[in-house]
Amino acid sequence: GDTFDATDHPHRRYNPLTGQWVLVSPHRAKRPWQGADETPEPAVDTQYDSGCFLCPTNTRVSGDQNPDYTGTYVFNNDHAALTVDTPDAPQSDNPLFRSESARGLSRVVCFSPDHSKTLPELSVPAIRSVVDTWNEQIEELGQDYVWVQAFENKGSAMGCSQPHPHGQIWANSFLPNEIARKDDNLRAYYQENGTNLLVDYVNSEMKDGSRTVVETEHWIAVVPYWAAWPFETMLMPKTHVRRMNDLTDEQRDDLALAMKKLTSRYDNLFKCSFPYSMGWHYAPFFKEGESDDTSIEHWQLHALFYPPLLRSATVRKFMVGYEMLAESQRDLTAEQAADKLRALSDIHFREQ
Amino acid sequence: GDTFDATDHPHRRYNPLTGQWVLVSPHRAKRPWQGADETPEPAVDTQYDSGCFLCPTNTRVSGDQNPDYTGTYVFNNDHAALTVDTPDAPQSDNPLFRSESARGLSRVVCFSPDHSKTLPELSVPAIRSVVDTWNEQIEELGQDYVWVQAFENKGSAMGCSQPHPHGQIWANSFLPNEIARKDDNLRAYYQENGTNLLVDYVNSEMKDGSRTVVETEHWIAVVPYWAAWPFETMLMPKTHVRRMNDLTDEQRDDLALAMKKLTSRYDNLFKCSFPYSMGWHYAPFFKEGESDDTSIEHWQLHALFYPPLLRSATVRKFMVGYEMLAESQRDLTAEQAADKLRALSDIHFREQ
Ligand SMILES: O=P(O)(O)O[C@H]1O[C@H](CO)[C@@H](O)[C@H](O)[C@H]1O
Ligand SMILES: O=P(O)(O)O[C@H]1O[C@H](CO)[C@@H](O)[C@H](O)[C@H]1O
Repeated sequence: GDTFDATDHPHRRYNPLTGQWVLVSPHRAKRPWQGADETPEPAVDTQYDSGCFLCPTNTRVSGDQNPDYTGTYVFNNDHAALTVDTPDAPQSDNPLFRSESARGLSRVVCFSPDHSKTLPELSVPAIRSVVDTWNEQIEELGQDYVWVQAFENKGSAMGCSQPHPHGQIWANSFLPNEIARKDDNLRAYYQENGTNLLVDYVNSEMKDGSRTVVETEHWIAVVPYWAAWPFETMLMPKTHVRRMNDLTDEQRDDLALAMKKLTSRYDNLFKCSFPYSMGWHYAPFFKEGESDDTSIEHWQLHALFYPPLLRSATVRKFMVGYEMLAESQRDLTAEQAADKLRALSDIHFREQ
Repeated sequence: GDTFDATDHPHRRYNPLTGQWVLVSPHRAKRPWQGADETPEPAVDTQYDSGCFLCPTNTRVSGDQNPDYTGTYVFNNDHAALTVDTPDAPQSDNPLFRSESARGLSRVVCFSPDHSKTLPELSVPAIRSVVDTWNEQIEELGQDYVWVQAFENKGSAMGCSQPHPHGQIWANSFLPNEIARKDDNLRAYYQENGTNLLVDYVNSEMKDGSRTVVETEHWIAVVPYWAAWPFETMLMPKTHVRRMNDLTDEQRDDLALAMKKLTSRYDNLFKCSFPYSMGWHYAPFFKEGESDDTSIEHWQLHALFYPPLLRSATVRKFMVGYEMLAESQRDLTAEQAADKLRALSDIHFREQ
């Protein structure tokens, strides 16, 4: 055909949050697969595993013993990528060999004492306590650190073969790349348009609907227009919320519900425990005197889900050669991915 | 201790090519590993495999038959991510929903008729023909396209389970993210300093030596100061070379030798076929009228190797949660990685 059709023709889409493009090749989804297979996560049926270092009452490598916790449980990572008391590094003025010292800490957040349950299988009140724990940690660490990254790596495809439901919190004395870049882009849009980029985006997506996967009273999850991973989603509140701490009680309960629905749809897609990395972005804790501009009106709280699976529980998308050297590439459009996720039940297949 | 020591203390290093930082956590290399194991590539011993779609004389999925080739062999990918005749997309003026149509093509480059030999196991003259083939393809496609990405995905950890030695060439009607970003950074340095960033860098590394892995008469491979992947390297000519086509005959022969030495060290590190994605960056083919500034003095030819393995043939680095959401992170310094690679023989373990 001679007329451009986004469901058929290769094109690029622009991510206004990162300033990066993604190459979309919708005609390519049908190529045969000869690559590596992922091992799907086996279903876990023991609620307590004596060999698990996250289960209540067990002793960790460090020698510390976990309490007999009943809700969430947080402890300092025994092998943190950062230290709280790193000495300052000498200044380097060679533009080719720039470095700076980095301070921070890293914590593990057990989502539940139950070894067998992943996030979508927890009750809404149990997920609500995970939300509260994230918020407490972010607020506490935000006193000392400009950035606190809360995230979850789920499944061995994402480097995690510990089935006990848990996430991590890394606090940083610096603004990491992805946050610095997003801060720049959100700020520039705010200065240019006088409105908040992600609030404008939420409003557009609520009207459009073609990329919506889950919509609850206060939250919406979409496959963003510029998604790179096949079933990537963004989960956003419907009103302007700069940080998790600004959420009302009602918005928090509803967030737990939205997360349960979204992650259940993920598991239902290929009838497996769907691997992903997810985490939260929100206004950094700029400290007076350390930043030129400490305003945060341009920020909007949102969660990002990056799941690698493409075509089945064992076939993933690899972001390799071309992607590493040139540009991210995807084989189905954001709208096609949203269609597939929307067609599924939002009740988890093990709870149906 | 109170004094900063880069081999002990967490710090960040700046990549002047991408404008991104990497978090270095050298104290973390000793944490226990509980994550997924990679399957090392089994050694292949048949030189011809009747089931392989890249071996000479075999018929591919498309129905096309490979010739009985004896050197390298190039054909159009039957499942290209791009099409040569994509219609133009309508202009969108909504900054949140920007897209553009993308044209291009994708080719497969068989490095050798021998099914059983990976790049380091090919002879220097055979690698030299791979270099010549890359150059011919880049020059030919550069007539029509602003960017031609030559790359190799090797090993199932990099999404490739086809052991027949081969790479790919993707030609693009646009400047992909990574090239656009590098072009900006190289150009800004050139304008500010009047010298070429990577030529300056090569000269510094030749003097320093602590990050050098392979040095031949005309080429040097280093673990760059700002490496993100554990054993990432950059391979660069010692003189200013804007594109592969500018290389002398002698530099091309020597490139084949340098590539054989570098990839042999990789295989020797964990006594396995070392997975990686590699590819070439060089001055884009700016077309008059399509770019504001078509000068290319700021460019320097270089190859990038991104190998995922961290601690053994089966333990890789995962760039997941924190890395995707915040910043790349590594567990050993560039100098420590270079030390390990330099301590090995540059003769492949199967040829010793
Ligand atoms: O073209 P292949 O080898 O089938 O595919 C592989 O390399 C491509 C280019 O890096 C990637 O887009 C794919 O995700 C990967 O599986
Ligand atoms: O901290 P873990 O779970 O051992 O490690 C995992 O998550 C980290 C944070 O995303 C990554 O740096 C590691 O590469 C990954 O294996």
